[in-house]
Formats: sequence, structure tokens, C-alpha cells
Amino acid sequence: MQTGKILVAQGGGPTAVINQSMVGIVMEARRFPQIGRIYGALHGVRGIVNEEFVDLTQETQGNLENVAKTASSALGSTRDKPDLAYCQDIFKVLRAHEIEHFFYIGGNDSSDTVRIVSEQAQAADYPLCCIHVPKTIDNDLVGSDHTPGFPSAARFVAQAFAGANLDNIALPGVYLAVVMGRHAGFLTAASAMGRKFPDDGPHLIYLPERTFILDEFLAEVSAVMKRLGRCVVAVSEGIHDSSGTAISSLLNKEVEHDAHGNVQLSGTGALADLLCQEIKTRLKLSRVRGDTLGYLQRSFLGCVSDVDQREAREVGERAVQLALWGRQSGSVAIRRTGSYAVDYMLLPLQAVAGKTRVMEDEFISNTGTDITEAFRLYMQPLLGSDMPEAYRLRYNRVAKVLKP
Amino acid sequence: MQTGKILVAQGGGPTAVINQSMVGIVMEARRFPQIGRIYGALHGVRGIVNEEFVDLTQETQGNLENVAKTASSALGSTRDKPDLAYCQDIFKVLRAHEIEHFFYIGGNDSSDTVRIVSEQAQAADYPLCCIHVPKTIDNDLVGSDHTPGFPSAARFVAQAFAGANLDNIALPGVYLAVVMGRHAGFLTAASAMGRKFPDDGPHLIYLPERTFILDEFLAEVSAVMKRLGRCVVAVSEGIHDSSGTAISSLLNKEVEHDAHGNVQLSGTGALADLLCQEIKTRLKLSRVRGDTLGYLQRSFLGCVSDVDQREAREVGERAVQLALWGRQSGSVAIRRTGSYAVDYMLLPLQAVAGKTRVMEDEFISNTGTDITEAFRLYMQPLLGSDMPEAYRLRYNRVAKVLKP
Repeated sequence: MQTGKILVAQGGGPTAVINQSMVGIVMEARRFPQIGRIYGALHGVRGIVNEEFVDLTQETQGNLENVAKTASSALGSTRDKPDLAYCQDIFKVLRAHEIEHFFYIGGNDSSDTVRIVSEQAQAADYPLCCIHVPKTIDNDLVGSDHTPGFPSAARFVAQAFAGANLDNIALPGVYLAVVMGRHAGFLTAASAMGRKFPDDGPHLIYLPERTFILDEFLAEVSAVMKRLGRCVVAVSEGIHDSSGTAISSLLNKEVEHDAHGNVQLSGTGALADLLCQEIKTRLKLSRVRGDTLGYLQRSFLGCVSDVDQREAREVGERAVQLALWGRQSGSVAIRRTGSYAVDYMLLPLQAVAGKTRVMEDEFISNTGTDITEAFRLYMQPLLGSDMPEAYRLRYNRVAKVLKP
Repeated sequence: MQTGKILVAQGGGPTAVINQSMVGIVMEARRFPQIGRIYGALHGVRGIVNEEFVDLTQETQGNLENVAKTASSALGSTRDKPDLAYCQDIFKVLRAHEIEHFFYIGGNDSSDTVRIVSEQAQAADYPLCCIHVPKTIDNDLVGSDHTPGFPSAARFVAQAFAGANLDNIALPGVYLAVVMGRHAGFLTAASAMGRKFPDDGPHLIYLPERTFILDEFLAEVSAVMKRLGRCVVAVSEGIHDSSGTAISSLLNKEVEHDAHGNVQLSGTGALADLLCQEIKTRLKLSRVRGDTLGYLQRSFLGCVSDVDQREAREVGERAVQLALWGRQSGSVAIRRTGSYAVDYMLLPLQAVAGKTRVMEDEFISNTGTDITEAFRLYMQPLLGSDMPEAYRLRYNRVAKVLKP
């Protein structure tokens, strides 16, 4: 065959830097003389079965560079998870268009899609090189030090909590915010990265790696209120009881599931509202406020880590190099090689697909409600340069005259 | 007396630039040889009655400049609204500390506090110059072109919706987000400022200046879904029915009120959740997501308009100049003198205090669910420089092979 046709697609939840990887693939592929055409599938695997392709060879460098800096999947995304019949449809289309290399940018659900497509291709004796290009704000891919998209989302969460902490100092009370991340607590843990002064919040961090017990939660909030007169709490959307049932799914009778069987955790403020209501009624506290950081975490335009930008771009570039020179399928992974330096490697798809990484124990404090210094050291370089910093007045008290 | 003692305090909800005004007051006051001491009251008027003062004369320039760039009230804030007895307590303390100038940075509730304190001072024949220094993300002070704090919050809202719109393009459905602003729709209207392409969202904007009718809302969402296959909606927390009852307060049996009689609108995701539930059940739509922008709008660390920074600083500086050279009480106002240029003036406290500005009719489209070009022209220069911009791929469709 040797058509030199490449197909790139984006799947799962968008991130702030997912287009860097897409543009990294396109720009690097353009340097190979044997590459004829670079197609983009619209809305992931769904666009493939529907033959919804655009020709990225016909796009200007200038616009590609601007799109690279723009958040959210420029080719559109999907939550579809291909089964056997779906994959057979994919093959028909790939064969008809003589695609030789397939790059799918996505998280662990998408990596599983790539694995299935790759296995179907092998079974059909179709010479297809399938590369999974990592992306997820949840940071839950096994085999990688971290995933593109996570650092920018983490930066947003850190800046959000740094500001919420200042607001909570000005108008004291309980402030609680729910953070994305599903079964992995990394993004929620990043809430601690805006802390600077010893009494800065979040004072309590609830991760899905630990069992959530309501009574203990209330006692811990109460203790912080007694100590500081205020309390900032970070809660993962994925917190669950001892049976593994998500606290958020205990709230709704009609729980929404996506095609992957995942419970809908985002797009509702119910979890924050429930926890605030418990604090108000059981602890008899008046000023209790709950936010849900929601979709801003992954899509807010203008909050991005430059380290994340750079790495997301390189992951796309290296994906093409590994595919074109190595001609083998796999999943691109980021390995930390220094403080701070990274390298990229190709893992077997089976090593990544459908697996979920959660926070390592060494990153979680013994109390279970805070992070460790190890996590801080892990996280710090990922946030990128020019993190905004909070300053306080140094109070020089004036002697009281009336009631000295 | 001639003690040259100044007192500055911050009231109401914090903003991204409220410390610029405080530092503007302190730095300008330091230039006057007749100023002896510059005190800061902790937590607004409550700090005054409790004699909780810090000596801002004893603070370094470097730290003051860093605090100026930090979001949220560095002196702390309060929701207290002084009555007569409260004001008498204030006088006792002001007299005991021989304060000659009182600067209170706040919104329309705070301006009313300044008015009461000023009137009490006059009634008591106490020579006190009271200056209200404007601040509110709601932009609802009468007599000002706009208020410090609003532009930065508006920038946050614009960036949030610009990103949410991109996310909604990638994974189509209904996305709805609730924005602060109480009875004024300015901040919700700012959601439109991230739009660039003709089909960019928000496609529908619901303002408290118009009556909210659920059936019309559902019909309008449905129409956008039919036209575009997706829909981004901005909803003000202050939307109300024809009787003026807030939609959010219809939801909760136990409605929380602050000392000013204001209903608690923020710190809960209930309004977004209710509207999403209506869309899901009545329009039979599956992918419906609701966010509540919450406290991030006013406190997010690192999203600020440089125009807002500059003006908030100048408002503080001018407050001192007007007080020291003019020796009269009043409220500092921003007047627009060019495109784009501003000047500052002193309004009588009675002209501002306790009054609420809402969006002018010329800023709202005839449909009632969008802004006008006049609003865009009004808003654009306030957002400041380097607004992040969204780019799209220009799709060059590839011909279908299997199903041409």
C-alpha cells in the first residue's frame, strides 16, 4: 500500500492542551516526505465510522499554532466506546481511505479503544500502526509520571483554592469546593499547591483513595473551625463510602451513566450542596458555602501550565517519530528523568489500556486528609512558571484605647 | 484636633482588585506631611467597634505593592450593617483614636454605611471626613460608569464561557452556568465577551432585568438545540418571576438572609441543578450540564484586568486627594471621558448610598436573551489587555468513500 496516510482523532474529556498534541502530530508528520495526507476525524471514533474526515494537510501553520494554544478538542470528541461491531465499521472506513497510522489522543477509556482497534486490525491482518497519545486531567494513566492536561487543570485548581482561601480569610466560615478526578485524587490534591502561609487552606482534603465517613468529616471540619475560626475544604467528586459506592451517587435516585458505565459525577452541584447542608445542620454553623469547580477545570480559557503545553506538544511529536521510525503500536508515556526533566517512551497498549492509576500512598498524609511533602515535590514543577502568589499585610496592632 | 489620623477599612464581598484601592489610599496618604498615622480596621465596621486596628504606616512599600496585586480584602471584611447604636459605638472609637478621615472601600451596602456614619458624625458635631471608595463585582453603583472589581470578575466570566463554549463544541449538549450579580445583570452579560465565531455561545443569556418564565426558557433552549445541536446558557443568580421572587429562593424552604436582608444566592448549585433538571425531563435531552461559577468569580487568583487594577489604584489615590484637599465627604465615582479614558469625581453620599443600578435597556437585546452591540462597546475596554482568544480549525472536508 504505502499511501502515507495518517489519521488523528481526539476522544474523552477535553483539556487545556489537547490541541498541542494534535498539532504536534500534524506538524511533525509534515516533515516526513513519505506522509501523503494527514486526516483528522471529527468527534473521535464516531467520526471515523461516519467518515467525517477533514484534511489537516490543508491547514495553515499559523492557524495550527493558534489552535494549539486553544483549550478543548478542536476536532471534537466523543464518549463512544467501540465494541466488536463498531471496530469492524472502523476498519471498513480505514481500509477504504487507506489509512496507515492512527493516532488517538485520549485517556484510559480512549487507550482501551486504541487497543481494541489495534487488535481488530491485527486479527484482520490489516497493517495499521495505532498510537495512543495520552491526555487526561485525572492523571490516572498507569506507566506515566503524569499525563498532559493534568498540570494545567491542577494549576487552575491551585489558583482557585488560593483565591478561595483569601476570600475565606476576609469573610470567615466554611468554604467547600468539589474537584474533578473521578477515582484518582491527584487533581483534588493539587488544591494544596496554592498554600503559602501556615494557616492557609485547604485545611482538609478528601480523596477517593480513602473511605469517606460523614461523621469523621464533620468532626474534622468542626476541629478546624475551633482552631482557626474558618475552614477551607477540598473534596474529590469521587469520594465513596466503605462499600465503594460514590457519595454523589447516593444522592440521586436517577444516576446517569455514560457509554463506559461511568457514573455522571460532574455537571451538578449536588455533592457540594449535600455536604454543606450536613455542616450547617449538624455543626450549627451559619456561613457555609459550597462550590463545584465543574467544567472550568478543564476548559477555562487562559489558565495553562507552560510545562504542560510543551510536554503535550512533544508527546504528539514523539508519537509520530515512534510510529514512523519504529512502526509499532503502543501508548506514549512520560517518564521523569530529572528535577525537572522528562523523556518519552512507547509502552505496550495492554500495559495502559483500561487500567486506572490512583494516588500513591506516599502522596497522602497519615491523617488521610492532607498531602505529603513528596506530593508537593512531585507537583511543583508541573504547574509551570509565573504562578500567581498571595501576599498578606503584616499586622502591626494598634493599642486599644477604650478597652485596652 | 489635627492629628492627621486616617482610617481605612474594607466591606462587603472581596474582589480581585480591592487591595489596589486600599494600597492606593495608603501610598497617597504617605505623601502628605500632615498625615500622622494610617490605620486599617480589621473586618470593616466590626473592626472599628472592636478597636481592631493595625498600623499601616508600619508596613513596607514592597509588601504593600505585593498585597495590592493579591485578590480579596487584605484587611478582612464584614457583612455588618450599622444601625444607630452601632454608629454611636463607631464614634466612640473614632473619637478615642482621634481619626480625622475615614475611607470605606465597598459596594452599595457599604456606601450606605458610610452615609450613616457621616450623618452621625455631623449630628455629633464630630469633624470627620468620610469617603466611600467604590468596589463591587456587581457593577450596581449608581453614578459610576463602572465599579472597580467588576472588570476583573467580568474577565473571569468571559474566559470561563469562552472555554465552556469550546468544551460544548467538542462534546455537544446543553451547558448552563449560573453567574453572580444579584439584581444587576452586568456580570452575566459579560459571558458574551468571549464570543468570536457566529455560532459561539452563550446562545442565551438570562438577566435579572427581565422576568424569567420557565416555559419560554425551555422553548428557547429547545430552539437553539434544533438549530445548532448544542446550547450554552448564561443565567444570572438573580433571575426572578413576574412577582419579583427570585427563582433560587423558590427552591429552598429555608432561605438564608444576611444582615442587609439579602437572600443568599451564592454558595449553592441549586439553581443550576433545578434548571438542568427541567431541561432534561421536559425537553428529553440527555447531555445537560450545569455549573455555578461561584466564589471563583471574585477571588480566583491570577485572572485580573490590568485596566481594573489601574483604576482601582487610582480610585484609592484620588479618594485621599479629594479628602485632603477638598475636606468634604462623598463617594468617589468613575466617569468615562473617552474611548477609552476615565476621570474620577466625588458624588454626594446620598446620591449613591443604598441605591442599585441595573443594566440599561440599550444594553439588552429586544429578545431579552442577549446583549447589544452597545454593551459590547461598553464592556470591551474594561477587560484589559491580553485576553486569551479561541481559534478553530478551518475544516477542509475529505470526500467520503464508502457512503459518498
